[in-house]
Amino acid sequence: MAVKTAEQYLDSLKNIHPTAYILGEKVENVYEHPLITHMLNAVALTYELANDPEGKKYLVTESDLTGEPVSRFVKFYVSPEDLLAKIRMLKFIAHRIGGCYMRCTGMDAISSVGVEIYRCDQKYGTKYFERLEGFLRIAQQNDYAIFSGVTDVKGDRSLRPVEQKDPDMYLRIVDRDTKGITVRGAKIHQTGSIIAHWGIAVPARNMTKEDKDYAVSFAFPTDADGVIHVYGRGTLEMRPMQGCDLGNARFSKFAPMVIFQDVFIPWENVFLAGEYEYAGPMVIDFGNYHRHSHGGCKCGVGDVIIGAAALAADYNGLSNVSHINAKIVEMLKTTMAIYGCSVAASVESTKSESGIYTVDPVLANTSKLYEGKELHEAIRTMIEIAGGMVADVPSDKDFDNPDIGPLLDKYLKGVDGVSTKDRVRLFRLIEKLAFESRDIVSNIHGAGSPETHKMTVLRNVNLNAMKKLAKNLAGIKEKD
Amino acid sequence: MAVKTAEQYLDSLKNIHPTAYILGEKVENVYEHPLITHMLNAVALTYELANDPEGKKYLVTESDLTGEPVSRFVKFYVSPEDLLAKIRMLKFIAHRIGGCYMRCTGMDAISSVGVEIYRCDQKYGTKYFERLEGFLRIAQQNDYAIFSGVTDVKGDRSLRPVEQKDPDMYLRIVDRDTKGITVRGAKIHQTGSIIAHWGIAVPARNMTKEDKDYAVSFAFPTDADGVIHVYGRGTLEMRPMQGCDLGNARFSKFAPMVIFQDVFIPWENVFLAGEYEYAGPMVIDFGNYHRHSHGGCKCGVGDVIIGAAALAADYNGLSNVSHINAKIVEMLKTTMAIYGCSVAASVESTKSESGIYTVDPVLANTSKLYEGKELHEAIRTMIEIAGGMVADVPSDKDFDNPDIGPLLDKYLKGVDGVSTKDRVRLFRLIEKLAFESRDIVSNIHGAGSPETHKMTVLRNVNLNAMKKLAKNLAGIKEKD
Amino acid sequence: MAVKTAEQYLDSLKNIHPTAYILGEKVENVYEHPLITHMLNAVALTYELANDPEGKKYLVTESDLTGEPVSRFVKFYVSPEDLLAKIRMLKFIAHRIGGCYMRCTGMDAISSVGVEIYRCDQKYGTKYFERLEGFLRIAQQNDYAIFSGVTDVKGDRSLRPVEQKDPDMYLRIVDRDTKGITVRGAKIHQTGSIIAHWGIAVPARNMTKEDKDYAVSFAFPTDADGVIHVYGRGTLEMRPMQGCDLGNARFSKFAPMVIFQDVFIPWENVFLAGEYEYAGPMVIDFGNYHRHSHGGCKCGVGDVIIGAAALAADYNGLSNVSHINAKIVEMLKTTMAIYGCSVAASVESTKSESGIYTVDPVLANTSKLYEGKELHEAIRTMIEIAGGMVADVPSDKDFDNPDIGPLLDKYLKGVDGVSTKDRVRLFRLIEKLAFESRDIVSNIHGAGSPETHKMTVLRNVNLNAMKKLAKNLAGIKEKD
Amino acid sequence: MAVKTAEQYLDSLKNIHPTAYILGEKVENVYEHPLITHMLNAVALTYELANDPEGKKYLVTESDLTGEPVSRFVKFYVSPEDLLAKIRMLKFIAHRIGGCYMRCTGMDAISSVGVEIYRCDQKYGTKYFERLEGFLRIAQQNDYAIFSGVTDVKGDRSLRPVEQKDPDMYLRIVDRDTKGITVRGAKIHQTGSIIAHWGIAVPARNMTKEDKDYAVSFAFPTDADGVIHVYGRGTLEMRPMQGCDLGNARFSKFAPMVIFQDVFIPWENVFLAGEYEYAGPMVIDFGNYHRHSHGGCKCGVGDVIIGAAALAADYNGLSNVSHINAKIVEMLKTTMAIYGCSVAASVESTKSESGIYTVDPVLANTSKLYEGKELHEAIRTMIEIAGGMVADVPSDKDFDNPDIGPLLDKYLKGVDGVSTKDRVRLFRLIEKLAFESRDIVSNIHGAGSPETHKMTVLRNVNLNAMKKLAKNLAGIKEKD
Repeated sequence: MAVKTAEQYLDSLKNIHPTAYILGEKVENVYEHPLITHMLNAVALTYELANDPEGKKYLVTESDLTGEPVSRFVKFYVSPEDLLAKIRMLKFIAHRIGGCYMRCTGMDAISSVGVEIYRCDQKYGTKYFERLEGFLRIAQQNDYAIFSGVTDVKGDRSLRPVEQKDPDMYLRIVDRDTKGITVRGAKIHQTGSIIAHWGIAVPARNMTKEDKDYAVSFAFPTDADGVIHVYGRGTLEMRPMQGCDLGNARFSKFAPMVIFQDVFIPWENVFLAGEYEYAGPMVIDFGNYHRHSHGGCKCGVGDVIIGAAALAADYNGLSNVSHINAKIVEMLKTTMAIYGCSVAASVESTKSESGIYTVDPVLANTSKLYEGKELHEAIRTMIEIAGGMVADVPSDKDFDNPDIGPLLDKYLKGVDGVSTKDRVRLFRLIEKLAFESRDIVSNIHGAGSPETHKMTVLRNVNLNAMKKLAKNLAGIKEKD
Repeated sequence: MAVKTAEQYLDSLKNIHPTAYILGEKVENVYEHPLITHMLNAVALTYELANDPEGKKYLVTESDLTGEPVSRFVKFYVSPEDLLAKIRMLKFIAHRIGGCYMRCTGMDAISSVGVEIYRCDQKYGTKYFERLEGFLRIAQQNDYAIFSGVTDVKGDRSLRPVEQKDPDMYLRIVDRDTKGITVRGAKIHQTGSIIAHWGIAVPARNMTKEDKDYAVSFAFPTDADGVIHVYGRGTLEMRPMQGCDLGNARFSKFAPMVIFQDVFIPWENVFLAGEYEYAGPMVIDFGNYHRHSHGGCKCGVGDVIIGAAALAADYNGLSNVSHINAKIVEMLKTTMAIYGCSVAASVESTKSESGIYTVDPVLANTSKLYEGKELHEAIRTMIEIAGGMVADVPSDKDFDNPDIGPLLDKYLKGVDGVSTKDRVRLFRLIEKLAFESRDIVSNIHGAGSPETHKMTVLRNVNLNAMKKLAKNLAGIKEKD
Repeated sequence: MAVKTAEQYLDSLKNIHPTAYILGEKVENVYEHPLITHMLNAVALTYELANDPEGKKYLVTESDLTGEPVSRFVKFYVSPEDLLAKIRMLKFIAHRIGGCYMRCTGMDAISSVGVEIYRCDQKYGTKYFERLEGFLRIAQQNDYAIFSGVTDVKGDRSLRPVEQKDPDMYLRIVDRDTKGITVRGAKIHQTGSIIAHWGIAVPARNMTKEDKDYAVSFAFPTDADGVIHVYGRGTLEMRPMQGCDLGNARFSKFAPMVIFQDVFIPWENVFLAGEYEYAGPMVIDFGNYHRHSHGGCKCGVGDVIIGAAALAADYNGLSNVSHINAKIVEMLKTTMAIYGCSVAASVESTKSESGIYTVDPVLANTSKLYEGKELHEAIRTMIEIAGGMVADVPSDKDFDNPDIGPLLDKYLKGVDGVSTKDRVRLFRLIEKLAFESRDIVSNIHGAGSPETHKMTVLRNVNLNAMKKLAKNLAGIKEKD
Repeated sequence: MAVKTAEQYLDSLKNIHPTAYILGEKVENVYEHPLITHMLNAVALTYELANDPEGKKYLVTESDLTGEPVSRFVKFYVSPEDLLAKIRMLKFIAHRIGGCYMRCTGMDAISSVGVEIYRCDQKYGTKYFERLEGFLRIAQQNDYAIFSGVTDVKGDRSLRPVEQKDPDMYLRIVDRDTKGITVRGAKIHQTGSIIAHWGIAVPARNMTKEDKDYAVSFAFPTDADGVIHVYGRGTLEMRPMQGCDLGNARFSKFAPMVIFQDVFIPWENVFLAGEYEYAGPMVIDFGNYHRHSHGGCKCGVGDVIIGAAALAADYNGLSNVSHINAKIVEMLKTTMAIYGCSVAASVESTKSESGIYTVDPVLANTSKLYEGKELHEAIRTMIEIAGGMVADVPSDKDFDNPDIGPLLDKYLKGVDGVSTKDRVRLFRLIEKLAFESRDIVSNIHGAGSPETHKMTVLRNVNLNAMKKLAKNLAGIKEKD
């Protein structure tokens, strides 16, 4: 059962009972909550596609641990081809979901944790890598959906973990004994936490010796004792609650806050516990991998955005208008930079000591910079092309009202041959693509803020070599 | 009673009974509907400010018709100073509302209709201008809130009004007799329609002889027989319905669709009825005035956006960080271009035959182009500065929950000295500033689409004169 | 003779004998040097226009010192109208010169020095303002061309004047006695130094008590003993030397380095000598005025750039092509922001204690930011529209060669009705507009670098007021 | 002798006697002309690097025709790896030349002609491909420098070839007999024409049946009878003439106009002669390949630009200044998009019938769009970082003048530890990088104009597939 079907995935959740709060209420059967079913659909589709003849080519490969067929979501990246295949897989799925499908953070965590704990083992003689491989075998056997907990709540951002007034602003080890560790803290923006089987915690920043209790990484079941998921409110979540005006007809994303109320983690699931010098590199690796992942999925969403804009032009009677074509090219210019830099970051990846490949950080972060800024402009352009109707389409309920329904049907008609209903559906999709706060904010802040991406670019580029090129051409002699 | 108080305004609505549908239901007492009270608050504040010692300087002036104190919202622009005062008034109010206050379209319609029907009267001997002055006197006496209906539903945008399959895709005269005209059609994006006393219809495009039944302008009470207001759904309207997670604590905007089901308009309120050559100029004038208005109000909202971003940096512990300062300057660069071009468009305004001044079209439209594109980037920058919390703050209801409220309070704390509650309030405001679809789409499509603005710039600039400058400097002799 | 003619200007130079070096040679009769005559033409045209019926309206006004007609170039700004008139004058002249006419720095220095020394006099009882008025009367009587020396060579930019290894990296007083002061140092980028009658030195930065010998301002004749002008090499200066391939057929700009080799300045021409606290404000005022000046002249040059691009499209057979129109609007968007913000900076100017008006710093600096960045893109757009011919048109000498001249004439023909020669003239103009290094660098660094402009914006905007607006709307209570 | 040394290259030119005009004069020994030696240096370096241990890895590979070592410049692209290797080679060389080395057009022509004439042969039974292989064998044996003539002078760009008033505005066959064809016309912007051994003509646009005499491709020696090279004037060419103020101390580029005065081409060198339907695809392929080439070389030049800017900051005493770092990241963001999209265009290349691989057109053209627009901004940024000195550094001759040389040395000193001379050398390099018109215009118009790139993107992207994705997500049913 290395590669689950959608049914098996849904089935497997029956034994999981996460503690979850949604809009102020503790929810018992969270997988049936109308705010969660749309999320489940997205994850379930990834399982479905893995069993689809075309999708299989993108999603399934051979495990380098067992040689069996395995989902790419639960696998180390052991070649440039693996990284390239990741990009293509994510784009393929994004085309079919039009947003986040919440399995990439776990995938990226696996390799980033792997790269660094291998180094840690070499230095300290720890056995972390072996444990991770053990966990990964099980994850592959069970085809787990895994989310990764990286972003701490951080308190005052100008202060380091130990300097915070409240010591719990970064996830930390509050106790350790022979059986395991106990952790306390909270991670925010935890994409897909509720609908995953497991999570992997990763430190959110570099640490000094003083911060060593904060240098902690581990795997944990999503319903572990003391783990609390709190749904964060986005802009459009009432629509699925009311069953109307949905936009994307089937899928949505969410990113709860996850609180660790003194959660016990047995040693077998602990991958870092105090070796502070690996905390920073681990999150840097994670960041690079995850910006690289965005290169695939957001480029795929970009294609949906462009398609929606072009279709809106058609529905408005404005096919093949010169200025709209020019705008579509500008949108493509952005999505292609995102995609192209991600492909190049795969091609120019480097083998680490563990055998896991790390992406080129300059190219991966450049890709994300285009997502963080220029993709927002592509979304604005979609609104510009679609027209003002994105602002204020009457509700499906108005269309259902016998008094005004027919009037709306009459007056909101666009080009001949397209029903008003379909036109309205398209505007709702565009509204969702443009105004679903979690998606849009993810473009900007997902996988770190643009400033982080910039710093990473700057730290990884060889400016001195470039200065030498200039000196050489200017005829300036180097000094000894 | 030339300048109403807020109480008088609210009181005056008691006699108005508009036909209104909201989310599929016909609403009897619309002014008490939770989706409408936030809108009412904004309009009411304009009345309040007109009676405030500081606000009065911005909002109240002397009527050029009666010499009495009068709100600037119900007055012709009879000097460059009037236009400059408009910009400053709108900025002043926007600072206090943080969004739209829904009285500008009416103000701009008054002058644009005035400019053109004066010309019509001169050519055809009609008496439209006299009628408009009559209407304006009453509007001044009663300090009416007036909205303007410009944007028709338009159907297939590649077709002219008469070419549409359904002849009602643009508002048109379906009957005329000695008492008045009867009109049919629908206008969308009708900012403030429900909470106004009157509306003024303005044609949405230029017309040919064949379209002459569509060349129609008139004033009408918002509860006239056959006028139906349909609330259009925005992204965040459930928040006021549920009384939580509000963002802007008091104010919102909306822009219903208004359907004219064979509405009778007596001649005394008709300002254009078939003189098709004035339809185009009227909407062009309106557009220019209204882009100019945006220059004041959106610049004011821009100040709120910048303030919110700067405050979020403080609350995150990131005051005076170099890259944040750099971003704030970029935001100011945009808002100042919007404001500066609007001020200049006032200074370089031109007196029309009627005595009403028209703004410089190139400068007014340039201002709007910055709003339509670069302001969106300023909003993205606000999100970038504020951080990922904009995506998914837990609900106020979660904070109220005794189990998790204290945990949220603990973990969502930012810099010392600022309560978690205030921090969350700020994130909600930022969410609203960034994701309220009606506001954001208004930046792009309010007062016409960016393409319209570009065409207006191109048509009003003297490219031939510029070519001559180039020829002269290149030493190219002009031919005769 | 308050307003000179062009002939009188040229005549007046006969008595001036500046020490000048050009491309390695000391030049005796500098005004006849082929590299200087093009500069002289530009300055002379400003005198000619002041005597032209149309030009007079822009260039000549009444002296507030004597009530006589006087050139605006030698006058304090004593009203918002003066500042607005400056913008319009500069745009008017730039249309006719297509570049710099080298009289604005002096004009801006007069008022910036005036504003601050009036304050100095009030504090210290000095008599600087009286002296400046005396100088200005003479300047008005003689209608002097004045340049202003602001930018010191600065050495290591991370160090203050007194901290520099070589104390002469900022202009300084090396001696003072009862008759006057002696100064040493060097100013670079001295637009128009050689062809002016006088210069006015202004400090380049804020000063501390230790730097007080660097806090010096004074007027000096351009041929004063010890003043050395060194021509700096630009990209295209061989063209006038060879009399071919000129681009702009008549005008050019230059910006020598001016070295002060222990130059004696009598007290009557000294306007600041040690009162260090006025050094910073003086250059800040100068910067703001001069960025404001750029708003007029560069917008005028922008019109030439747009005209040249539009004409090239015509000559290539591409009139009224949709994508070219779209590009022209983008160019206008930039020039209108430059112009609009400058107009607004005039309207929102403030009266200083001296009666001289200072421009709104936020708007003036915003205008310059658009020049510094977006205008460069407008120039790129001109090249894009014009096509590759801008890169490599054969020389006029090739056209004169009987063997290949006719072939070039045949093959470089564009649209019918335009001679190849005129087409080539236009490409040369475009080459000059795009690649004359002094002009282009002036867009970026003239009147301070973009970083300076950004800092000025940031320091002059009331961010706290904006934060309060946000708090108020979010429902956050201010603490006491 | 499959891979020439630099000496062999220079030697091989002794037998070539092109007809060349430079600045109005017919030049007999063109390779010794001071305007040409800098060009020769660049080409010679490519030969030198092919014999250098490190360079060899980038420049030399195995011939797929003969199996012998061969320069990549004279080889078909027969795999994605070949295309990737091209990008890396071009970047490697550009680092050492800082500009164009004038051998890529020929390289790109070989494959683009090959792809299409293979198809032509299949359809018409012609033997073009065999001929091209024959030519290529000789080219490989002799390691020829080859340029490609694509851009016709085009006359009125709104007219097709046959519609032009003068039939010679596009290169055409004026005669054909059993021995060969005779061609007439002119190609402009012929990078490297004079210093190449051979040229390959390629049609500049798609052709219809009526244009068939214009559908012509062939190889020709650069000194063939009737071939006239006319040097086009750039902005900085006087510097090498005068031997001072050079900027890039050793290398320059040029792009003459090449006139074909009834040139006879024997059939063995003719690759297309009338099969009009292959003209368009041939130039499209060439364009795609050449935009892809720019991805490598301009990214390499970009590294020099960034290095020069960073070094200027150091020399000014501004190392590690926050706003400068931020600007450098923006520059990298552009160069990485150029590079990343080119790498991806290689990875996603497609095998054509001939076995030659064609690059992904969307990615290759996107790369070029960033070069055409954003790279110009990177250059502006370099000027911004470097400071105003770029505008007007005194000449080397001034530094040599004993009177002022020491003063310049004193006053133009920057940070301690860097000689004034080196600082000036750097400013001259920056001047050249920013203002050499042929280089800068090549960024914009090289390999076709940005509009061409946009059209190519639009034509090659599957918008319908994207619309379907949107429909699917919106819940819109496809119609049959």
